[in-house]
Amino acid sequence: MTSPAALVFDAYGTLFDVHAVVERCEAFWPGRGAALSQLWRAKQLEWTWQRSLMRRYVPFSQVTREALGYACEALGLACDDARVAALMQEYLRLATYPEVPDALARLRAGRKLAILTNGSPDMIDPLVAHHGLRFDAVLSVDEIGIFKPAPEVYEIAVRRLGVAAADVGFVSSNGWDALGAKSFGFRVWWINRAAAPLERLDFAPDGQLRGLGELPDALAR
Amino acid sequence: MTSPAALVFDAYGTLFDVHAVVERCEAFWPGRGAALSQLWRAKQLEWTWQRSLMRRYVPFSQVTREALGYACEALGLACDDARVAALMQEYLRLATYPEVPDALARLRAGRKLAILTNGSPDMIDPLVAHHGLRFDAVLSVDEIGIFKPAPEVYEIAVRRLGVAAADVGFVSSNGWDALGAKSFGFRVWWINRAAAPLERLDFAPDGQLRGLGELPDALAR
Repeated sequence: MTSPAALVFDAYGTLFDVHAVVERCEAFWPGRGAALSQLWRAKQLEWTWQRSLMRRYVPFSQVTREALGYACEALGLACDDARVAALMQEYLRLATYPEVPDALARLRAGRKLAILTNGSPDMIDPLVAHHGLRFDAVLSVDEIGIFKPAPEVYEIAVRRLGVAAADVGFVSSNGWDALGAKSFGFRVWWINRAAAPLERLDFAPDGQLRGLGELPDALAR
Repeated sequence: MTSPAALVFDAYGTLFDVHAVVERCEAFWPGRGAALSQLWRAKQLEWTWQRSLMRRYVPFSQVTREALGYACEALGLACDDARVAALMQEYLRLATYPEVPDALARLRAGRKLAILTNGSPDMIDPLVAHHGLRFDAVLSVDEIGIFKPAPEVYEIAVRRLGVAAADVGFVSSNGWDALGAKSFGFRVWWINRAAAPLERLDFAPDGQLRGLGELPDALAR
């Protein structure tokens, strides 16, 4: 099979490691950081799906901030504006996974590279700039007002990159995002760092990898 | 304000207590029942939202069965067909919350009463029949092939009951379901048995109750 003409990457958890946010939670609320991070992340995602179905889109930065408020309230943790601001600030300078810069450099040859993320421009643009990463496009669901895994989201990449769906290789660490992209018609590699089971969503990825460093070889096969 | 011409109830967690499923999980996998039930429920819900956005609907009974398989695999618990069948069977005879039969009898006077549920007919119809409960309609998202909180779901009740949205009182224990119904245009009472924070989804319910027994008085106010 020919190698994809374009590679499109999910951002959070795929290129960028959100672990620093977890650490900051633990620093603010010792002993409760893990529980807070987990509930925060769960509500952040749930609301992207529910708002999309309700057709009540708001930018991911707002969803993220409101999910933090909810999680603190649910766990009985005091949270002031300064802590909210500090945690939201962490999102603007998340580390990449260690293998990411080298892998992107190897993958670039002869291909378009893009990000396709739930993150609104106020979150993703500063983060990409912070690392000096070069992409042909940094695409956000914000331009259409609905979150992943709606097919309209993956359509953004087709339209903006000018590449047919079958020529796009999509890379995500979120199983449901990978399968949403597969359902749309992309070729898909699932970065399954946690060795999670496959989500039961009618599809399977074209490949499963333990990290982005394995992708160049997987594409060459 | 005039009292609603129709009352529409969510099923699982609102009228019917899923606790028996949790207990059966604990009996099958001692010490792991709570973790399994929690992950099972989380995946069951996530997939309803993701499948709706992907436009890959399958009946809730299939989502529920597949979510159980996923949860067992993720937690490393052996699960054979007999256990799956036994757990799915529990859903067909869940207990009502203690106050439900009396509350429904008091609420019926002069009103249409209906259920509106994600549950497919193969799950909800046997459960309602098991309790001999009388409703004017038992409505399932299965007739339109998309799950809550899409507005098309709440529209089913308007169409099938022949009542304007503003004349419908909707009752759910799921905050996001209550707010999806509010976003659609129903009057909404949230049965908040767990004293959870309000979901940040742009709306608020018309009232919060600790159980269905408080609803007749709330409607009379």
